[in-house]
Amino acid sequence: MRVERYILGILLFIVLPFVAVDAAAQQNLWQDKGVVSPEVCADGSVIFRLYAPNAESVAVVGDFAMQECAMQRCEGGVWEFHTLPLASELYFYSFVVDGMRDVRDPSNAYVVRDVGSQMNYFIVGGGCGDLYTAQSVGHGTVSRVWMNMGGSSRRMTVYTPTGYEDSTLRYPVLYLLHGMGGDEESWIATGRVAEIMDNLIAGGDATPMIVVMPNGCMQHASAPGYSADGRFKPYMSGSMDGTFEEAFSDVVEWVDSHYRTVACSSHRAVAGLSMGGFHAMQISKEYPNLFDYVGLFSAAIFHGEAGVSLYADFERKVSAQFSRGLSLYWIAIGSDDFLYSEVEQYRAMLDAMGCCYEYYESSGGHTWRNWRNYLVRFSKRLFNKL
Amino acid sequence: MRVERYILGILLFIVLPFVAVDAAAQQNLWQDKGVVSPEVCADGSVIFRLYAPNAESVAVVGDFAMQECAMQRCEGGVWEFHTLPLASELYFYSFVVDGMRDVRDPSNAYVVRDVGSQMNYFIVGGGCGDLYTAQSVGHGTVSRVWMNMGGSSRRMTVYTPTGYEDSTLRYPVLYLLHGMGGDEESWIATGRVAEIMDNLIAGGDATPMIVVMPNGCMQHASAPGYSADGRFKPYMSGSMDGTFEEAFSDVVEWVDSHYRTVACSSHRAVAGLSMGGFHAMQISKEYPNLFDYVGLFSAAIFHGEAGVSLYADFERKVSAQFSRGLSLYWIAIGSDDFLYSEVEQYRAMLDAMGCCYEYYESSGGHTWRNWRNYLVRFSKRLFNKL
Repeated sequence: MRVERYILGILLFIVLPFVAVDAAAQQNLWQDKGVVSPEVCADGSVIFRLYAPNAESVAVVGDFAMQECAMQRCEGGVWEFHTLPLASELYFYSFVVDGMRDVRDPSNAYVVRDVGSQMNYFIVGGGCGDLYTAQSVGHGTVSRVWMNMGGSSRRMTVYTPTGYEDSTLRYPVLYLLHGMGGDEESWIATGRVAEIMDNLIAGGDATPMIVVMPNGCMQHASAPGYSADGRFKPYMSGSMDGTFEEAFSDVVEWVDSHYRTVACSSHRAVAGLSMGGFHAMQISKEYPNLFDYVGLFSAAIFHGEAGVSLYADFERKVSAQFSRGLSLYWIAIGSDDFLYSEVEQYRAMLDAMGCCYEYYESSGGHTWRNWRNYLVRFSKRLFNKL
Repeated sequence: MRVERYILGILLFIVLPFVAVDAAAQQNLWQDKGVVSPEVCADGSVIFRLYAPNAESVAVVGDFAMQECAMQRCEGGVWEFHTLPLASELYFYSFVVDGMRDVRDPSNAYVVRDVGSQMNYFIVGGGCGDLYTAQSVGHGTVSRVWMNMGGSSRRMTVYTPTGYEDSTLRYPVLYLLHGMGGDEESWIATGRVAEIMDNLIAGGDATPMIVVMPNGCMQHASAPGYSADGRFKPYMSGSMDGTFEEAFSDVVEWVDSHYRTVACSSHRAVAGLSMGGFHAMQISKEYPNLFDYVGLFSAAIFHGEAGVSLYADFERKVSAQFSRGLSLYWIAIGSDDFLYSEVEQYRAMLDAMGCCYEYYESSGGHTWRNWRNYLVRFSKRLFNKL
């Protein structure tokens, strides 16, 4: 068969250089030896497998379990671990082989980068995991655009909902901000924004909206590798010195002039996680006429650098913001989050000032699991008065 | 310092679950132990490093060398290999640890997926590698859009050149097709289309153009994970049964109606690699009035499925295509490519028919290194008569 001969040709030419000196080359194509991993079973349990013929100990570690799980040596040099049934969710994991940590699964082509690390993931369906999975619904467009912010060109991710290109409608906008160590790729990749919005919109659970995800780290023009900043190793960078917030009106102006938006506060929301929650808080109080919807997800409330003028006069500005009358000021945090007490302190401050907000407390800590959950809950509440 | 305390908090909360039972948790954050790898030195040599404290043998394998390179055990459980100076290029590599192949480099956050495998890469600058690297130039927009092709919704990657959003100009279009096992992510990720076009356009070496990268595998609506086809394991799939070529006019129609294109053959090119070169050949002869520029990169000339009516009457249709008068019919292949002889055969056929084409023969085989080189050479030649 012609096509089959062609495939074999490709395999030999592309893959051979990588296994050239291995006598068993043909069985080593892509190195997975037919291993399936991870295998998500019908009951939600998951089987991890890794081919490590000469290893003495292999474990799998991830956010599906509180501790390392020792894998068992099976036939043919393959190690295996079978979990109990897991709740529906998106999970990260890696292997530990003879003390070497952060071993990726060669059988799993699905990875996301978190700060400087590429992590394998899998999704258990049947609950929120279904929202994080592409379904048979209309899909929005995801663009990486370059715009001018604070005098320099910066990269940004923009989601437009399905049907945008073929309509003349104007849409509301959610500005969604990442945390420290993140960038304009974080929400779309690990935060599953496209899948979540596609699914919520298709189900009638969210108003069709544009989602704008800028890069909140002013030291860099883009996520690593996409600008002249180079292929630096991603690290815990961010901007909590007022520069991002100061320049943020450029983002809104650019979006309003390049997309069919409804350019008024009733059709704008700003939200963020961790440092991005701090940014959302600062930006919304600094530009009190821009946003009627604000979301703080595990926000780093009191971590701005000292002596920054934009952060001064905080209470008066927040009070002025609330006195305008907001549609929703939504605060969410996990009961185990290391920022729990300062969010508590901020709520007490708002209470004392008579500022009305909504509060959602989940279990868990400072995790993407919580942030995806918060995004789902928050976006369902947006622009309902349209 | 507030921000530093905040960073420490994030590290402990996010990373701890992955190292929870490790007494040395704090030193194990992201597991790289401060290891730098790969380190590209000023002379173009490269040092690979891997922390594998209990390994008995470690090697690095990649397209920078013809064989596995044994790494040396150094201090602190880190293994190392230092190459000779390498020519400027983008290289792939992985490690082999005690017989376990395809071990990714945990110190390198840069990966691309090729079919079912995530591969680490690095770039040596000073030559063509500079074209594959984001430079301080204007950057185009890269969008993942959904369009209707052959009656179903399919995902596609579109590059628009810098300035597109802020102009009213109309642009020429290059349709760029991937090979078997690839998808709409292949050219933009491994083929470095955005970097190449940004750099060529900035240097005045290419006409500003739109580049459209559809998915040429009709079995799937998208690259794995982006559609209801699910998170399948990528494999050597493709379409050489006429269905993709048959429906291709839908792509052109959609692009012409959604972008500011110059909708005539003098402003359209179609090119592809391997299966995509076959597609470019079939599409351009099937729609002889659509394209004045055609590029076949390592094309799988004679691998179409038997009995497909669209592939019938080949010589007559090709003859009719050429008799229209093309601006450029460009054929490129490496001297070691497994498809070399059939490209030779096709050239003889064109010669016998009196069809004029240009031929470029490189060294090497069926590799991305060649396809990036071909893209650079071909795109410099496009739309020069505008």
